[in-house]
Amino acid sequence: LPTRLGEFDIISRFFAPLAAGEAGALGLLDDAALVDLPPGKTMVVTTDAIVAGIHFPVEVEPKLIAGKLIGVNLSDLAAMGAQPLAYLLVLALPSAWSGCELENWLEVFTAGLAEHQAGHGISLIGGDTVATPGPLTLTMTALGSVERGRALRRQGAEVGDLVFVSGTIGDAALGLRVAKGKLPHLAADHRSALLDRLSTPRPRLGLGRRLCGVATAVADVSDGLIADLGRICAASGVSAVIDAERVPLSPAAAAAIGNDPALLPLALGGGDDYELIFTSPAAAAPRICVIAGELDLPLAMIGRIVGVSGADGPVRVLYHGAPFAVPIAGWQHFR
Amino acid sequence: LPTRLGEFDIISRFFAPLAAGEAGALGLLDDAALVDLPPGKTMVVTTDAIVAGIHFPVEVEPKLIAGKLIGVNLSDLAAMGAQPLAYLLVLALPSAWSGCELENWLEVFTAGLAEHQAGHGISLIGGDTVATPGPLTLTMTALGSVERGRALRRQGAEVGDLVFVSGTIGDAALGLRVAKGKLPHLAADHRSALLDRLSTPRPRLGLGRRLCGVATAVADVSDGLIADLGRICAASGVSAVIDAERVPLSPAAAAAIGNDPALLPLALGGGDDYELIFTSPAAAAPRICVIAGELDLPLAMIGRIVGVSGADGPVRVLYHGAPFAVPIAGWQHFR
Repeated sequence: LPTRLGEFDIISRFFAPLAAGEAGALGLLDDAALVDLPPGKTMVVTTDAIVAGIHFPVEVEPKLIAGKLIGVNLSDLAAMGAQPLAYLLVLALPSAWSGCELENWLEVFTAGLAEHQAGHGISLIGGDTVATPGPLTLTMTALGSVERGRALRRQGAEVGDLVFVSGTIGDAALGLRVAKGKLPHLAADHRSALLDRLSTPRPRLGLGRRLCGVATAVADVSDGLIADLGRICAASGVSAVIDAERVPLSPAAAAAIGNDPALLPLALGGGDDYELIFTSPAAAAPRICVIAGELDLPLAMIGRIVGVSGADGPVRVLYHGAPFAVPIAGWQHFR
Repeated sequence: LPTRLGEFDIISRFFAPLAAGEAGALGLLDDAALVDLPPGKTMVVTTDAIVAGIHFPVEVEPKLIAGKLIGVNLSDLAAMGAQPLAYLLVLALPSAWSGCELENWLEVFTAGLAEHQAGHGISLIGGDTVATPGPLTLTMTALGSVERGRALRRQGAEVGDLVFVSGTIGDAALGLRVAKGKLPHLAADHRSALLDRLSTPRPRLGLGRRLCGVATAVADVSDGLIADLGRICAASGVSAVIDAERVPLSPAAAAAIGNDPALLPLALGGGDDYELIFTSPAAAAPRICVIAGELDLPLAMIGRIVGVSGADGPVRVLYHGAPFAVPIAGWQHFR
């Protein structure tokens, strides 16, 4: 085995197989990739980066990094109602890694990509590989398509609309606690359930597509339920009231909060759940019930859109009617 | 001024103005951007990253970083014959920077982006901003369009084709020497000409578009004339012979090599020139002359495509008929 892999070797050995399913990738041999768009469709494009030590622990399994990267990016497509088409990948690889470390990492990481891209029916179509004296940094650009004029947006929520959220909320924030060695009293299966939600986002692509024409505004829950709903409110020029007791919790999150109710604000404020939060007129509630049934995915009504924003921000949280404080760090500060 | 800028502040203050010209950017307020493609066109997508201390000196002016990033990415579009449509940008910003440093950097960097994007008639449509404990790392994804079926490729060169290159070669590699304090005997205007070529790539977009239907294979000169021609040869299953004395040099490069002929291999092997190297049948030579005249851009015939690849690699370099050794580091090794 070579002690230093050439960039060409890296591409042909590890990445070209991920591009084999898509003619427009041109075998990763060209300067750029080609993407055709069916008539009547608009392309949807998003890009997100994750940094070792910031967005995932340095020692995390490379397969999980692959799942996180794809999940985070496809979640943005889900929030627009788009169907994924393909992705590009930029790796900044630590120059301190030995050839052997690099090879092992690439082997497991690309196996993870292969698994996740197959699950979503997409292929790698391009990218770049650079060395960095800093931490491992991965940037993905995801391309999708949506019927022209039907993309979901953050703007569009109207006074009187109801607020819905998919799945369960707070698992990733509680999973981060578990990863840090906290919540020792929680049962082992609950701990692993929370960790799994933190490490492997499951982008709600099927839901996003079905919400076209049903939801008035949509965002994915990446920075936290309240922060992301705040963005919907800001884009729509409205404010919202959330009933904290209606926010759906997994059995694991319920157990953690049952042990320590002080964790509830963390669950509501924490990010990385990659559920969809959306608004729609009350008249659409039956349709939303049908979608939940079709997808076998709980869709909970957790609040409503009210008038213009007050002094206490775009989202007020109530707990059985009383004001309830939720930290929204993700919304406020560049970290 | 705030000591810590929020991500939202960064977007609204520094980046949203760069997105104002493109409706599909959705004001950078949504989870993804929308891009419509005119009928009959294919989308062309590329992504490239640059890292402080690797691809540019840590202390370099932020405006130059903006120009380099846009230039490097649009050069890939040029090599496919594409017209640029829009771009996305991911910034990994050093967490060690103070709020004031961050603000000043963003101010100058985004002013540079504004200037360069206006020069190419494109807008920012999306991106991500993350913190890193490592060096400043910037990733751009550039989108372009080309007539369906007319994209230029690296494959397609045929035995008997001539090899052409645009502009002048080796300036960036020599500029890197100047940046490192070498070449002290060179005249000041030559030194600054070489530095300018290193710092500000000028992607050959107009040439790329005109080469559709004229060139049989095209690449941009990013890793070095010989390395990039080697990729054309590998993709096309041919080999090439280059006459070193025909490779066009700028007055500054000619002066440097005149002082020290040992610099000629460096000029031929070094990267970052962002010219286009292409092949075409001899019958197209008059058409190529016309294109050179229309664009006021020299297009030099520097060699020819010969049979299959020999033991000494896909590209042989001759100097007045005798074998001439050129280092091709960029082609071989991940750095």
